[in-house]
Amino acid sequence: MNYMLKDENAIYYECGYSCDNALYLSLGNEAFFITDSRYTIDATEHVRHATVMISDDLYARAASLLESAKVKQIVFDPKEWSVAGFERVHSRVECVFEPEPDFSHKKRIIKNEEELKILARAAKLGRKAFKTLAKEFNTDGIGKSEYALTHQAKSILSDFGKYDVSFDPIVAVNKNAAKPHARATSKKLDWGDLLLVDAGLKYKRYCSDRTRTVFVGEGFDFTTQQIFSKQKIQKAYDTVLKAHDNAILNAHSGMKAKEVDALTRDIISKAGFGEFYVHSTGHGVGLDIHEMPYISSKSDTIIEDGMVFTIEPGIYIPNAFGIRIEDMVAMVDGKAVVL
Amino acid sequence: MNYMLKDENAIYYECGYSCDNALYLSLGNEAFFITDSRYTIDATEHVRHATVMISDDLYARAASLLESAKVKQIVFDPKEWSVAGFERVHSRVECVFEPEPDFSHKKRIIKNEEELKILARAAKLGRKAFKTLAKEFNTDGIGKSEYALTHQAKSILSDFGKYDVSFDPIVAVNKNAAKPHARATSKKLDWGDLLLVDAGLKYKRYCSDRTRTVFVGEGFDFTTQQIFSKQKIQKAYDTVLKAHDNAILNAHSGMKAKEVDALTRDIISKAGFGEFYVHSTGHGVGLDIHEMPYISSKSDTIIEDGMVFTIEPGIYIPNAFGIRIEDMVAMVDGKAVVL
Repeated sequence: MNYMLKDENAIYYECGYSCDNALYLSLGNEAFFITDSRYTIDATEHVRHATVMISDDLYARAASLLESAKVKQIVFDPKEWSVAGFERVHSRVECVFEPEPDFSHKKRIIKNEEELKILARAAKLGRKAFKTLAKEFNTDGIGKSEYALTHQAKSILSDFGKYDVSFDPIVAVNKNAAKPHARATSKKLDWGDLLLVDAGLKYKRYCSDRTRTVFVGEGFDFTTQQIFSKQKIQKAYDTVLKAHDNAILNAHSGMKAKEVDALTRDIISKAGFGEFYVHSTGHGVGLDIHEMPYISSKSDTIIEDGMVFTIEPGIYIPNAFGIRIEDMVAMVDGKAVVL
Repeated sequence: MNYMLKDENAIYYECGYSCDNALYLSLGNEAFFITDSRYTIDATEHVRHATVMISDDLYARAASLLESAKVKQIVFDPKEWSVAGFERVHSRVECVFEPEPDFSHKKRIIKNEEELKILARAAKLGRKAFKTLAKEFNTDGIGKSEYALTHQAKSILSDFGKYDVSFDPIVAVNKNAAKPHARATSKKLDWGDLLLVDAGLKYKRYCSDRTRTVFVGEGFDFTTQQIFSKQKIQKAYDTVLKAHDNAILNAHSGMKAKEVDALTRDIISKAGFGEFYVHSTGHGVGLDIHEMPYISSKSDTIIEDGMVFTIEPGIYIPNAFGIRIEDMVAMVDGKAVVL
């Protein structure tokens, strides 16, 4: 099958290198990595299993490759390509362009041994960063704004620039935690607050992702054992933790993703918080922070060994507080193993 | 004229708010901001001059708006829209979709008074950050890796999380500076090195952008008065500075962009460095870090009052060193004023 890729991670997956201006074509037994002259040195050194081509018009170069190879049909992911970029290839060559949404994500849904090792390492570094963060926040976080705490989280997650972060960390206090995608505000952290931290880093381009919600008492940490001063919060917290643990314990290969979702959702619904659980149980993690499989109530995807995804149930009470507990798991020998 | 927008900054420009999942439709005298329920509160509070609509299928909602308003023709920027997203509107409605590349960038090429003030403020904050950075690097930068220095630059540019950065700062030492888009390495900064820093921050979503190349001697700073220990570097530096100053002094409204480009290129070419000046003189700056006008040798764009762009000539000697000096200018009363 012939295919053409535009997305940076999709290309990296094929040939072990990518950059922000590249196209990748797989044509029968041959593959081509096309980039511009700024990346000649790096591409030549790092691209594996593909011929590097340098051009100041990537799209025209791709079209002429398709033409000279007399390609009749080629697959592309319409989510990856802009209308303009696609047209610059499409308009130049007689060929059937077959849209295949999530083409690369589908290829990447099962992780191989090497990827599993890298993801485990990313998760381990992420866990370590949360420990460091707890120390820092205890000694130096009280009285700081969410902005400043977010920056501090980013510094520590990245090990002061050594790693990229998977995404801008979410650091949300009290009612701001009620927004699943909270943006930092000038709200300052105080003793007795609820604090939600959702953060990850990239190791060898693979992402980690983790969330903890904690009570900010003396010597607080990011373990899942938390005692809140308010009973209502504690009840929600215990429910989320129970849902989280239940999914990790009972998810197994062969289930549908929606059955895994039900492992968290049923517990939260039965506890009366169903309407406040406003998102899916989790998402795949790999080169992209969000990839397949999606662990949602609508997904019929069969869970298989080698898949890596998050379990992250939550309860969000508007204008009051939000709870989320998230870990990454890999499916190994039929069961979910926390990374 | 009817138009539909997908890009976050393009949408912000129209209505003063945006988020990472939004569509904007301008239909005759009416405008619509479509987003999902995660953003209901923020969108309702901040969107101006447009009706906020909440939907879990933005594309279907846009199509039904086009249908009910009986729109015959609508403009879109094919660079902004993915093939998949565009098809989800296009396939649902009988209407002529007219591609207009850079539609929003063209609208935004002349900055109004308010935008000029914001950009001046962004540039001022950026300049101040470079001063702070000089102090930090003097006392604490020697022996640190490019990774760590990049992180330090990001911390200071963002004022420790208060501002977003315009882009990941480039901090490059000696031969790594020879790559215009250098990525940080483990190379450590030492006294006597050449240091290139290219960095900016966002103030009210508008970007600043600045580059300095300096000699790392005791008490070094990021002014343009630099004395290098090697004569070859000094010659290249003086040439770049002369080119930079010449363009700022002689650029005027009514010129073509390529004539402004020639103001830097001619000086560098005459000094014998022409082949090492591998990019354009500059680019527009606004909500996007790269926007119109592009100050390149091929651009016939007429420079006008209210345009804001960079002047950033450079000389890059592979495996040896690179020099770039960059400032942002606004065209005011026919002349270039450094921001």
